[in-house]
Amino acid sequence: MQKNHVRKWRQGNMDQIQKNLLAEIAGLHEVPAGAYNFRVNGAAAGRNTTSNIDIVTKTDKPGIDIIIKPGTKNESVHIPVVLSQTGLDDLVYNDFYVGEGSDVLIVAGCGIHNGGDKKSSHDGIHTFHIGKNARVRYVEKHYGEGDGNGLRIMNPTTVVDIDENGYMEMETTQIKGIDSTDRITKGRLGDGAVFIVKEKIMTHGKQYAKTSFEVELNGKGSSTNVISRSVAKNDSTQVFYAKIDGNNECAGHSECDAIIMDNASVKAIPEITANSVEASLIHEAAIGKIAGEQLIKLMTLGLTEAEAEEQIVNGFLK
Amino acid sequence: MQKNHVRKWRQGNMDQIQKNLLAEIAGLHEVPAGAYNFRVNGAAAGRNTTSNIDIVTKTDKPGIDIIIKPGTKNESVHIPVVLSQTGLDDLVYNDFYVGEGSDVLIVAGCGIHNGGDKKSSHDGIHTFHIGKNARVRYVEKHYGEGDGNGLRIMNPTTVVDIDENGYMEMETTQIKGIDSTDRITKGRLGDGAVFIVKEKIMTHGKQYAKTSFEVELNGKGSSTNVISRSVAKNDSTQVFYAKIDGNNECAGHSECDAIIMDNASVKAIPEITANSVEASLIHEAAIGKIAGEQLIKLMTLGLTEAEAEEQIVNGFLK
Repeated sequence: MQKNHVRKWRQGNMDQIQKNLLAEIAGLHEVPAGAYNFRVNGAAAGRNTTSNIDIVTKTDKPGIDIIIKPGTKNESVHIPVVLSQTGLDDLVYNDFYVGEGSDVLIVAGCGIHNGGDKKSSHDGIHTFHIGKNARVRYVEKHYGEGDGNGLRIMNPTTVVDIDENGYMEMETTQIKGIDSTDRITKGRLGDGAVFIVKEKIMTHGKQYAKTSFEVELNGKGSSTNVISRSVAKNDSTQVFYAKIDGNNECAGHSECDAIIMDNASVKAIPEITANSVEASLIHEAAIGKIAGEQLIKLMTLGLTEAEAEEQIVNGFLK
Repeated sequence: MQKNHVRKWRQGNMDQIQKNLLAEIAGLHEVPAGAYNFRVNGAAAGRNTTSNIDIVTKTDKPGIDIIIKPGTKNESVHIPVVLSQTGLDDLVYNDFYVGEGSDVLIVAGCGIHNGGDKKSSHDGIHTFHIGKNARVRYVEKHYGEGDGNGLRIMNPTTVVDIDENGYMEMETTQIKGIDSTDRITKGRLGDGAVFIVKEKIMTHGKQYAKTSFEVELNGKGSSTNVISRSVAKNDSTQVFYAKIDGNNECAGHSECDAIIMDNASVKAIPEITANSVEASLIHEAAIGKIAGEQLIKLMTLGLTEAEAEEQIVNGFLK
């Protein structure tokens, strides 16, 4: 791969490891339709723009600007990042400008294959500027693999500003292979804006996952729903923060459900603040192990205890 | 009142203001049956002990030790505190030793009448040592009044250690007249121990109320239920913390429901941590204004909006 060289992506440019990572994080087995930007081992590795969606390399720092014209509908942008080189610390700033009245799908995500002994890390700082009446579905997936001893670290930061009656739905998943993650998501909502977050996390081994949501309901009639489901296995540790500030007539709900297994530990610290008499805020959190009856039921059907647990966990995170 | 003079209490020793405070905080219109210790304006003002319940003045700091013999049943201890002198800062340490297998009612509480311009404050630090199989119902009420400009401040701290299969139910109420409060409650639970907390708070004017619960579920089969209901009126501010650590096979639940009115602000920060796979922890919190339909229903029955609000608030805090 040549550094800073931007061109149409061909599968032939990638090795098998990289192709696997891409399939895991973006479900991509071939070149996607629409706009895309691929980043491999810290360098640009392929890009496509459309007449409505432009992608421009930043000149002041690593990263890209994704500019979506007002009124763009039924288009998608894929911006996956793949790291297969051990010892690489990748930092990237991506800014999304979503024009008024657009309706788009954005797929991001990062896959790390670390076959070496050095730490590999990716810090992606994503900022969304969502115009009036625009709708965005944002899908983000983090995945790690590799049989080396090197750590795989990801610290995604997502900052979302939503204008009047804008809508963003964010699905973020980290199921496997990330040793340490500090995930920060911030939302600032204008009048009538809606921000939905669905997070799924699974940790195993000695992994550590910290996830923080901070949503400011500034606009009249704004609302948010933050839902986190997580499974903590082995000796892993999870910390969940969710902060919702109701500063206007607004509705906020956050929910954190965690399954704890083995010697894992899980902490949930939600925070709701009503600064307006018209704010209606709710939080729910529950942490517990898999219910015994559920296990027994599946074991009665012929599954081993491990298989039954596996099936329950998969269902919970589906 | 003579300082450090301990004797049987007679109503004649108190003036009308003090009697009113006593009625508000302890529901006492006459000398209670059983053990009691009255503290008025920073000095002892009456005491009674029984053959099972001893009360001893501390020699190293202000306060008393309340010693309840093992097996004491159906007895009560009243230890109200009354402040009617402006500018008094009263600090007191009360330690309760509740013997194994006891079953007692303990009524505490503090009333401040501040008719002057100086700050009056009471900091009560209560420590409970609850023996095996003992049961305690603990009722605590904080109340302020007086038409002076002097602030009325109360910072109650309650620390509860509960031995094997011990049980404590704590009802704590602060409905009126306290300008600033920082309430701290800590519980440490042994095997099979149970700690129930029911808190009711109402703030008005520019009042500030902070309340923190911290419960360590250390023992196998221990459980806690922390329930807070609050109403914030006018320009008042409330902050609610509840921290439950599940360190063993245990069950924890906390719930915070707040009604927000006028220009008030309410913050709820619960924290649940499962450090054991056998810990089952749940938190719920909701902040919102009085539902419009509820108001309309009562107004249809002939109530004014203010009367309807009053009735709903009273029902909520009952």
